[in-house]
Amino acid sequence: MDLYEAIKRRRDVRSFYKGGEISDDVLAKILMAGHLAPSVGFSQPWNFIIVRDIEKRRKIKELAMKEREKFREELSEDRKKIFDNVKIEAVLDTPVNIAVTCDPTRFGPNVLGRRTIPETCQYSSVLAVENMWLAATSEGIGMGWLSFFMEEDVKKILEIPNHVKLVAYLTLGPAEIPERPELEIFGWGKRMKLSEVVNEESWGKPARRELVEKLEKVRI
Amino acid sequence: MDLYEAIKRRRDVRSFYKGGEISDDVLAKILMAGHLAPSVGFSQPWNFIIVRDIEKRRKIKELAMKEREKFREELSEDRKKIFDNVKIEAVLDTPVNIAVTCDPTRFGPNVLGRRTIPETCQYSSVLAVENMWLAATSEGIGMGWLSFFMEEDVKKILEIPNHVKLVAYLTLGPAEIPERPELEIFGWGKRMKLSEVVNEESWGKPARRELVEKLEKVRI
Repeated sequence: MDLYEAIKRRRDVRSFYKGGEISDDVLAKILMAGHLAPSVGFSQPWNFIIVRDIEKRRKIKELAMKEREKFREELSEDRKKIFDNVKIEAVLDTPVNIAVTCDPTRFGPNVLGRRTIPETCQYSSVLAVENMWLAATSEGIGMGWLSFFMEEDVKKILEIPNHVKLVAYLTLGPAEIPERPELEIFGWGKRMKLSEVVNEESWGKPARRELVEKLEKVRI
Repeated sequence: MDLYEAIKRRRDVRSFYKGGEISDDVLAKILMAGHLAPSVGFSQPWNFIIVRDIEKRRKIKELAMKEREKFREELSEDRKKIFDNVKIEAVLDTPVNIAVTCDPTRFGPNVLGRRTIPETCQYSSVLAVENMWLAATSEGIGMGWLSFFMEEDVKKILEIPNHVKLVAYLTLGPAEIPERPELEIFGWGKRMKLSEVVNEESWGKPARRELVEKLEKVRI
């Protein structure tokens, strides 16, 4: 698939075909896309943990359901109504879950570029997630990122050591990838204009008029 | 460009053509690719600050030079020798620098999915960076990520408010994109095998033999 096509079609997918599977060939491609991501000081701090075990997944889904309820309680009545339509996870509805971690001790302690900003370790794993997301899209596989849990709870279930950070928990499977973000369809949020988030020279300072015009017309 | 081609060809670029420019048309495409990234709860927390001002860039380069020295001091003699060959930044050698931030107050406080893991705000901006990196690659533009500075120092220079996080500082310009990572060419680091970083069911547990075989053969 063309790069820009993949960027435009990629969605955070929550609804999957029943009984869908992912072949090892396709899984290997998605993982390789992740592994070819940039990493701070070439430290490749990621592990990709494929989770299929149903007991582990049941526990993770349970955590998500509890956190969903806590989040819901904090919402206004209007937002609650919208939120009740939103599916937040597909832990058991997908053939494959993948946890992505980062290990700050890998090739450490002197990782080039990490001394000043330790979070660049986690950031490297996040870059890998975006590569995986685009690769999945190009393979007709939907992917969703679940964050409705406390990190420590899921780390225990997946036996992730203390010093390793859990960065992302992903659910993947064959799906019809929606044309627009589901949160936009349900009225939870709206896409901002590109020109609203581009500044020149200082934070919050709008771009030159000529660039704003380009930003408002650009199609990829 | 084909997605997998872009993923394979993308590099952290430090050497740029002299006098290269980036047109507003190309810049707008790269920024749009970033803006179409996934974000936690569709919060789009990013700002993209285009920095061309030479005084600001001089100050940032100076910070990087100081931090480079501090990092160097911590290395063994052997590593120092390798490190001395490594170019860590191209702040003044590129036509465009872009700082990418994340604003946790945007569409807040109840951002869907961020309650449990506040770092998903920063992670969203990192996903945008990877989209920009791939878009730049497909446009023949090299991009490097600089992290040799303390966040607060650069925030002051770019007038980034206290509550906003500086996530990435990028340098972009026309370049010949190297075939292999420079840190590999110089002998600083080596690409791990994909099968070394893929686990099944638990962290550190190797994948099934059949999957390992696929991981060792896969080409994207």
